[in-house]
Amino acid sequence: MVVIIVRDVLVIRNPDYEAVVRASFARQRFMATLGARLTHVAPGEVHIALERREDLTQQHGFVHAGVLGAILGSACGYAALSLMPPGADVLSIEYKLNLLAPARGEHFVARGRVVRAGRTVTACRAEAFTGEGTTPIATLLASMMTL
Amino acid sequence: MVVIIVRDVLVIRNPDYEAVVRASFARQRFMATLGARLTHVAPGEVHIALERREDLTQQHGFVHAGVLGAILGSACGYAALSLMPPGADVLSIEYKLNLLAPARGEHFVARGRVVRAGRTVTACRAEAFTGEGTTPIATLLASMMTL
Amino acid sequence: MVVIIVRDVLVIRNPDYEAVVRASFARQRFMATLGARLTHVAPGEVHIALERREDLTQQHGFVHAGVLGAILGSACGYAALSLMPPGADVLSIEYKLNLLAPARGEHFVARGRVVRAGRTVTACRAEAFTGEGTTPIATLLASMMTL
Amino acid sequence: MVVIIVRDVLVIRNPDYEAVVRASFARQRFMATLGARLTHVAPGEVHIALERREDLTQQHGFVHAGVLGAILGSACGYAALSLMPPGADVLSIEYKLNLLAPARGEHFVARGRVVRAGRTVTACRAEAFTGEGTTPIATLLASMMTL
Repeated sequence: MVVIIVRDVLVIRNPDYEAVVRASFARQRFMATLGARLTHVAPGEVHIALERREDLTQQHGFVHAGVLGAILGSACGYAALSLMPPGADVLSIEYKLNLLAPARGEHFVARGRVVRAGRTVTACRAEAFTGEGTTPIATLLASMMTL
Repeated sequence: MVVIIVRDVLVIRNPDYEAVVRASFARQRFMATLGARLTHVAPGEVHIALERREDLTQQHGFVHAGVLGAILGSACGYAALSLMPPGADVLSIEYKLNLLAPARGEHFVARGRVVRAGRTVTACRAEAFTGEGTTPIATLLASMMTL
Repeated sequence: MVVIIVRDVLVIRNPDYEAVVRASFARQRFMATLGARLTHVAPGEVHIALERREDLTQQHGFVHAGVLGAILGSACGYAALSLMPPGADVLSIEYKLNLLAPARGEHFVARGRVVRAGRTVTACRAEAFTGEGTTPIATLLASMMTL
Repeated sequence: MVVIIVRDVLVIRNPDYEAVVRASFARQRFMATLGARLTHVAPGEVHIALERREDLTQQHGFVHAGVLGAILGSACGYAALSLMPPGADVLSIEYKLNLLAPARGEHFVARGRVVRAGRTVTACRAEAFTGEGTTPIATLLASMMTL
């Protein structure tokens, strides 16, 4: 077991952060196409759940890495947006995805967290787990921009 | 105009590389879900085309970064597979995606190329362009593994 | 405060892992050039300490990002090596470095940890902190190969 | 041979770009420590040369990946700075380094180029070659910020 403690002051600039995140997520048509659902919205942390479907698979029947990248990237983007000031929007600068194990199983969750919220750039990290949540299957490190 | 010339010997280990790539792509159900099409298969280089659809968009109506990541990653993976020996399969170790400009337009192409084919690990790069092909909208740098 | 718990079985394949890591680090002449010191070697986790010196700085007098990348990459590589079987060596496939804050201060530590140890590829993460260890100044996500 | 043509309008915002780049490089004490030299400064493109020295090596006697990352990152940063307006400074947001082959040889060059110059974020790419310049030994993809 590895315990990583990152101590940082999380400043909430927008008391309506949850409504802002949920409204933006609802406008991401691609999330609905994937069947992805927003399951947790907290300051600096957002979770997105997904069920395996045949039409989301790669050549071996596992969920496609691109699907994992999409929900991990969105989880990061919304974790970043949750700490931005009112009226701000979030833009992905870049992300890096490491695939750790085949995406076996039926239920997946992507957990995105802010690593450091800067004025212009926010660094975020996300992990994808199978529903049981024991072993990560993918991890993502991203830079998001405040617009 | 920037011209980058990468001189490298491309060794074709499998004369049936095109059939192998096309068969694997056809089994990636998620590519069909996106409407992605394999438009070019050459040794060490694969192109994938995509049309904008409402159900592929993010909150501003542009094609979602996750969609670009998926076709860029697949273009890289198949560029790598095209240079692998008979019987081999390709596995994504990781990829990094930089978003360069909003994915405006109706037609997109992802062009993946092998940068260096090692025995175990192949490094690849891919760019996504709008149909007009002038300005890249995203670029990806990936590591693929030979199985 | 954010607590991330990654539960994973760490398998120690080489009981002499610490001697192997220390011997390899001692042969990395560049670490001596930087004045970097190995301060902690545990299964799947390695720490490297560094003191600020004028000859390690960038244009604003902070420690150069390349120095941070070097000690973070080495911390990751040795974290990976600590879990490899006897006789194995470690090779960096790639790493991604996010700079989170200027490298202010006199003392720095890079903490590398294995995220997942595969047979061929090991994914690792590292954070750099100032000596006080409160705020991370850089984070790195890497893929290492067992040779 | 692979030919990549990236057509983009390069806007020179500062006619004194070369002096700005050379002055900033001269203040990077770590570049002098590495013996790195600025050998080419053009709009959106910067080259840095380096000679192998024993004190720059890793455990097998090749130049350390961290050294390559440092000169590739600086080449990218200065390529970005060359297109920024007068008075601007450049800050590294992140970079990703793929190691393609052992850094054999005595002479190395890192060539950084701007992929896309945005108002706030500039995406850059760099390749490291041995002196002969035929095979790339490392490639880097970076995001730089205008300050």
